[in-house]
Amino acid sequence: MKNTFGSSMTVTLFGESHGPEIGAVLDGLPSGIPVDEAFIAERLRLRRPAGAISTGRREQDPFRIVSGLFNGKTTGTPLAILIPNGDVRSRDYSFGPARPGHADYAAHVRYGGYEDYRGGGHFSGRITAALTAAGAILLDALERKGIRIGTHVARCAGIDDAAFSGNPAADLEKLNASVFAVLDEQRGEKMREAITRAAEEGDSVGGVLETLVLGMPAGVGEPWFDSAESELAHALFSVPAVKGVAFGAGFAMADMKGSEANDPLVIREGKIETATNHNGGINGGITNGMPILFRCAVKPTPSIRKEQRTVNMAENQETTISIDGRHDPAIVHRARAVVDSVTAIVVADLLAQRFGNEWLVVSDQ
Amino acid sequence: MKNTFGSSMTVTLFGESHGPEIGAVLDGLPSGIPVDEAFIAERLRLRRPAGAISTGRREQDPFRIVSGLFNGKTTGTPLAILIPNGDVRSRDYSFGPARPGHADYAAHVRYGGYEDYRGGGHFSGRITAALTAAGAILLDALERKGIRIGTHVARCAGIDDAAFSGNPAADLEKLNASVFAVLDEQRGEKMREAITRAAEEGDSVGGVLETLVLGMPAGVGEPWFDSAESELAHALFSVPAVKGVAFGAGFAMADMKGSEANDPLVIREGKIETATNHNGGINGGITNGMPILFRCAVKPTPSIRKEQRTVNMAENQETTISIDGRHDPAIVHRARAVVDSVTAIVVADLLAQRFGNEWLVVSDQ
Amino acid sequence: MKNTFGSSMTVTLFGESHGPEIGAVLDGLPSGIPVDEAFIAERLRLRRPAGAISTGRREQDPFRIVSGLFNGKTTGTPLAILIPNGDVRSRDYSFGPARPGHADYAAHVRYGGYEDYRGGGHFSGRITAALTAAGAILLDALERKGIRIGTHVARCAGIDDAAFSGNPAADLEKLNASVFAVLDEQRGEKMREAITRAAEEGDSVGGVLETLVLGMPAGVGEPWFDSAESELAHALFSVPAVKGVAFGAGFAMADMKGSEANDPLVIREGKIETATNHNGGINGGITNGMPILFRCAVKPTPSIRKEQRTVNMAENQETTISIDGRHDPAIVHRARAVVDSVTAIVVADLLAQRFGNEWLVVSDQ
Amino acid sequence: MKNTFGSSMTVTLFGESHGPEIGAVLDGLPSGIPVDEAFIAERLRLRRPAGAISTGRREQDPFRIVSGLFNGKTTGTPLAILIPNGDVRSRDYSFGPARPGHADYAAHVRYGGYEDYRGGGHFSGRITAALTAAGAILLDALERKGIRIGTHVARCAGIDDAAFSGNPAADLEKLNASVFAVLDEQRGEKMREAITRAAEEGDSVGGVLETLVLGMPAGVGEPWFDSAESELAHALFSVPAVKGVAFGAGFAMADMKGSEANDPLVIREGKIETATNHNGGINGGITNGMPILFRCAVKPTPSIRKEQRTVNMAENQETTISIDGRHDPAIVHRARAVVDSVTAIVVADLLAQRFGNEWLVVSDQ
Repeated sequence: MKNTFGSSMTVTLFGESHGPEIGAVLDGLPSGIPVDEAFIAERLRLRRPAGAISTGRREQDPFRIVSGLFNGKTTGTPLAILIPNGDVRSRDYSFGPARPGHADYAAHVRYGGYEDYRGGGHFSGRITAALTAAGAILLDALERKGIRIGTHVARCAGIDDAAFSGNPAADLEKLNASVFAVLDEQRGEKMREAITRAAEEGDSVGGVLETLVLGMPAGVGEPWFDSAESELAHALFSVPAVKGVAFGAGFAMADMKGSEANDPLVIREGKIETATNHNGGINGGITNGMPILFRCAVKPTPSIRKEQRTVNMAENQETTISIDGRHDPAIVHRARAVVDSVTAIVVADLLAQRFGNEWLVVSDQ
Repeated sequence: MKNTFGSSMTVTLFGESHGPEIGAVLDGLPSGIPVDEAFIAERLRLRRPAGAISTGRREQDPFRIVSGLFNGKTTGTPLAILIPNGDVRSRDYSFGPARPGHADYAAHVRYGGYEDYRGGGHFSGRITAALTAAGAILLDALERKGIRIGTHVARCAGIDDAAFSGNPAADLEKLNASVFAVLDEQRGEKMREAITRAAEEGDSVGGVLETLVLGMPAGVGEPWFDSAESELAHALFSVPAVKGVAFGAGFAMADMKGSEANDPLVIREGKIETATNHNGGINGGITNGMPILFRCAVKPTPSIRKEQRTVNMAENQETTISIDGRHDPAIVHRARAVVDSVTAIVVADLLAQRFGNEWLVVSDQ
Repeated sequence: MKNTFGSSMTVTLFGESHGPEIGAVLDGLPSGIPVDEAFIAERLRLRRPAGAISTGRREQDPFRIVSGLFNGKTTGTPLAILIPNGDVRSRDYSFGPARPGHADYAAHVRYGGYEDYRGGGHFSGRITAALTAAGAILLDALERKGIRIGTHVARCAGIDDAAFSGNPAADLEKLNASVFAVLDEQRGEKMREAITRAAEEGDSVGGVLETLVLGMPAGVGEPWFDSAESELAHALFSVPAVKGVAFGAGFAMADMKGSEANDPLVIREGKIETATNHNGGINGGITNGMPILFRCAVKPTPSIRKEQRTVNMAENQETTISIDGRHDPAIVHRARAVVDSVTAIVVADLLAQRFGNEWLVVSDQ
Repeated sequence: MKNTFGSSMTVTLFGESHGPEIGAVLDGLPSGIPVDEAFIAERLRLRRPAGAISTGRREQDPFRIVSGLFNGKTTGTPLAILIPNGDVRSRDYSFGPARPGHADYAAHVRYGGYEDYRGGGHFSGRITAALTAAGAILLDALERKGIRIGTHVARCAGIDDAAFSGNPAADLEKLNASVFAVLDEQRGEKMREAITRAAEEGDSVGGVLETLVLGMPAGVGEPWFDSAESELAHALFSVPAVKGVAFGAGFAMADMKGSEANDPLVIREGKIETATNHNGGINGGITNGMPILFRCAVKPTPSIRKEQRTVNMAENQETTISIDGRHDPAIVHRARAVVDSVTAIVVADLLAQRFGNEWLVVSDQ
């Protein structure tokens, strides 16, 4: 389905970095869900570049919801969000040599030269603003149903953040109030220093995002092929720069013995839980009621000032490139708002597939 | 779509571990593709447990293709493969305490106690036999179009295999002829020793599979949401025990600088390539003509003889379990045949979405 | 999705007229639905040719459910039904000239000569046996939820049956107990005479089926594009020989004035209903709580003994054909069992999309 | 998929009658297709109410294409068309009694009172403007590939238009240049008189549209379930007011004998064709190379001035309603532009499924 994702609840994306507007259409929303535009704006702010460690491009995200909303609540018909592209300087991006690490060459083969190459076109991280806005509506709705989602920069430039504490709900609250979302502010400061250093060198750094979903009911997902892991990974891998997704202990699980990796089942306050959560809240593709936990590897921003070898596609000749536009020396901290929104969309869809779309509605809202 | 996967080419799975038959339906195949039943049997053999390091269950896989095949070639209408479940001993699996690391508890909540719990039911690795058989048809067809797929046990019980050599085509040939697929036989021997040791301890080990796809044309996949990575990960995460999927340098990319991670574009023999392949052959969700490379983390077999804490779901009481049936102390080496087949199905679907279903047909076949 | 239909509840079909087995896979069924194999057999009997007015081919339909069923109830994982093809005489169908009115020529272009042409292959009405069996499970489940479906031969060979009476529930009961389903037996007798006459002339006749769905809740379906009418028509038009589908007053509505066609809303026993039902229970694509009513035009059986002009595709030469195999002089009365099953599948899917898959479960079953 | 339709080429619709903007997103377009904005405007003009026989609402359709278009050609990424709602008078539509024949009551049950009821909201015919614009891009692209689509008002207010002539290409050219599309202008004049009379009586009339698709290649469509008829009917039944769809001779086929209904195959200028076209260019769900022909029954406009019985949903009381806003006494002639666009979208998708998305591209464009 290309630019549409989801089964019972879907999102459709459109737009290019330098086109007039980008947008997202959410379909399958139940009617009667409150839409808090200030919350959407807040989530867009978390995604926006800010301060010394981010691009000079000052993105304005004055979104408009043009359908599916009536008297402050969803109507149940498609909700379209449009965001005009304001501060665009096309001259920064005049076509030329393919930018290494970007989709320029792959897109050129895919679209035969008709692609809108300005600023990465439809491949641009800019499009994630629409995705972030759409997901914000669901983040908010899920929270009302007791499902909380949050992400921290678990690693950046080789520096690890602290792990989630014994009070993950408080952790999520803290993260969702932070522009640079880490659990340990001192390590966060070190990460920002490393980002600044990379910027000074005309280079960039990557990192790892770790996401937690609290309050997810057990029994959601499918064994084949729409496992909770499959659906989440599908959506997460379409976020630009994500190159790896792992659940629970992830790749570390490959080195464990069965007796270590298996999460023992226990009864806590009359409820079946697992003593550990190496499986990240999912067994056999189906949620087991424990927190969903996963990590995304985010590669370093491909746009760097440092000179790189590349090919001028028009002339089919090797050349070099030094990318001078306004670029982030790291996107991992900004990507977290996107990952939260993507997670909310997938989780809402999984719940809708399992319990019907109306499940999201809180009766007295 | 639950048990159906794919867009232009789809596979539908059904069956349970101890039911009469399991099966797969391939739809969207072009007409005129030769079906080599001996090759399917060979791929099923690679998936089957074998020798000291595998389960005592001697699976017979006498598959039957009951539709979509006429005079040895596909008709273009759905091809259904059925595999009867032969050597089944239900008494090994009488219902009781949930097996840690398995889907027992999650399935119980999902299906409300109506699930066929015998041998894991629909969650059983047994179902992958049908998937392996279906994918074998496409592995074969892709090979005729110059696209070769192969997987090695890149890591098992903490032991690394060698990396792919400078002659990856030869590597794949070797791997596809091996039951225990490693590039370095000595390290493979050590892995098998570790597996045997784990078995002796009543325990199990996990590992990492690394898959290479050679000959993939550039320009295949979509930016949102059906990126080549998204589609592959979606299918791979539905393979039992896979907990992580990473492309190219994967999680290691998170620690690189942009100047390291970006693959410089170069011209080799008149063709645009990249000097390195940290992106695993995919940029912006679209293939760039380099080999597709990815890794899957495979957790240790959850069924172990060692005593584990768990809960008896019927009685809602904590208890312990020691699993005595015939179980593999490792499944990573067997999972590779499944991963190859899943990869073939996704790659064939991506190609069909891009170029139409007929692309797979070799004109003179 | 080619041979898979549905959103929350799907059916996948496979098989050919003269292949070893045909089958259907139902996915998205909730767990815990009773499966009454005698009822499935009964519905297959209604579809089977019988007596003087039907083909000499004595189809045996000894179906097997090989997955998704445990202790007499659905498990919630895919339920596969297989029906072996018993009484097949391939010599009746040796390939030669294209049969007019059949798919022979279209299929030949579509599949390039690789199609299994024997007995119509995958296009054969034979495949509807699997569809009928799959739908029977849902007919039964819907009945337990108070939703009853029935179809009569509203017209055959130019002879009209009586209209539904003021007691449609009784009408459906009568129809579902009849092999030749008409409301007025005398007119049914005349239809059968006309069929017999056509058979004697080596010719065939068509007809119109009219289907009623009682007990459908209001508020089911979507405005764009998955209207209740769209979903029903999609599935109905894949039933062989159906060339028209119309809801409520259908084409007669085109000749009405708005003041006639609009169904006035009234309150009956405290419930909002419509005084008439020209819209067939659907407004704006969404059910309004009145009975769903639609008609299908069924063309005459294309296989006739009478000589017809055609083309020998192998030789690309005009020729004539007289089809001598065992063929029905009418299929409209047999197609009704197929239409009932297709209706049940679509209705169950529409309900599952609206209320979740579990809606079908009766709590005390 | 609710508001998204299509497999390889999809359209997503959003918007409400009185919301700020309506829109459509086309996905799966190949890159390099010219987009003629003047042609889109012309198709929107054909859909717009005009003159004495149409509503007083003067719709302005100043559409904007905000993505997927670069240098006048498609980029291959989603193309979004937005149309602001200009001339809206919400006071005409203040909520009150359900309008008979409209979706008001069904929508109220479906959306629980949260629906945007103003002017029919998402159910409004207004939304078809976005659909018409999206389809226009494909009408144009198909024409360049030799596939021409056109529709006439085959019947209105009980008056029949002439049938297609022996020169259907000329017929289509004439129709596509007409606001009130009939083949016989005198009969068209009588239809318009009948429409005017109905308007004077505060009533409305319906009609039948007949659509022809010339130049369609043979071998397109699927046997189960995505027959060409299924796909077309699915989309056509989502057009407001369409209550019946029939292919070729349609319901008249039910009264034919096999010897009449079967289209004899013949060779004309070396090409296999059929002597008649009772099957409307489709056999077994697959095109046979003859023109595709189908009819849609369009019910009379439900909004009439004449007093009607209805129910006030808020008060749950019977009442009467006389609808005074600006309404068309007939919509059948306007619906033809919508039907043409819907047909183009489905035909383009069927071709893309069969031959790949690139098929639409003309190499030298």
